[in-house]
Amino acid sequence: MAELPEKARKLFKEPNLTYIATVMRDGSPQVTPVWVELSNGHVCFNTAVGRVKEKNIRRDPRVAVSIANREDPYDKVDLRGRVVDMVVGPEADEMIDRLAKKYLGEDEYPWRSPDEQRVMVKIEPESVNTV
Amino acid sequence: MAELPEKARKLFKEPNLTYIATVMRDGSPQVTPVWVELSNGHVCFNTAVGRVKEKNIRRDPRVAVSIANREDPYDKVDLRGRVVDMVVGPEADEMIDRLAKKYLGEDEYPWRSPDEQRVMVKIEPESVNTV
Repeated sequence: MAELPEKARKLFKEPNLTYIATVMRDGSPQVTPVWVELSNGHVCFNTAVGRVKEKNIRRDPRVAVSIANREDPYDKVDLRGRVVDMVVGPEADEMIDRLAKKYLGEDEYPWRSPDEQRVMVKIEPESVNTV
Repeated sequence: MAELPEKARKLFKEPNLTYIATVMRDGSPQVTPVWVELSNGHVCFNTAVGRVKEKNIRRDPRVAVSIANREDPYDKVDLRGRVVDMVVGPEADEMIDRLAKKYLGEDEYPWRSPDEQRVMVKIEPESVNTV
């Protein structure tokens, strides 16, 4: 596990949109933006069961992450790593509300759909590029 | 080739940072931000010979692209596609200056390194997701 440098921790702690790349079944890449938070040196994001990236990482846990300062896109970090945990249930539900607070300033995630199951995805960084 | 909807064309025409995912030799994903412009329905970005993503797409031309409005990250588009052309020389050099104008408001790319060779990379969109 690679330790996140201070520059990366700062970017992840602020409400900066983060891009997560995964690999499709056919080996081609896929990338979408997510909300993130840090937990014990892991980069954690929240998605819903059944989404393309969720299915991809269940099959292949290797991911890449890129984040830039929302006020200065040249202040940026990218990393490669591996999904080491995926959690559904109350922990994932509380997390999406916490992320709504961080990114939208709202106490509850406003786009919740009754038929969706949220999932917390934990990434262990393996190599970090701060240039 | 998939046609880009108006929403996507608008995002690509404005100076919005764009994330390009490629695949490493070992099949894991890689993602970094780039500057882009549109050309005849293709998404074109500029990088330098020898960069990780440049080496990746020479080996495997399949890429994914994600772009969000710099003023509203929920106005976003992601797509998957294929690199259909990579051009070095005057065309790539002129392109990076044009992108510096678009993204920085400067007439010349200010971070040019004398030993780098710029390359224009042309992506043909294959599937586009505007939600």
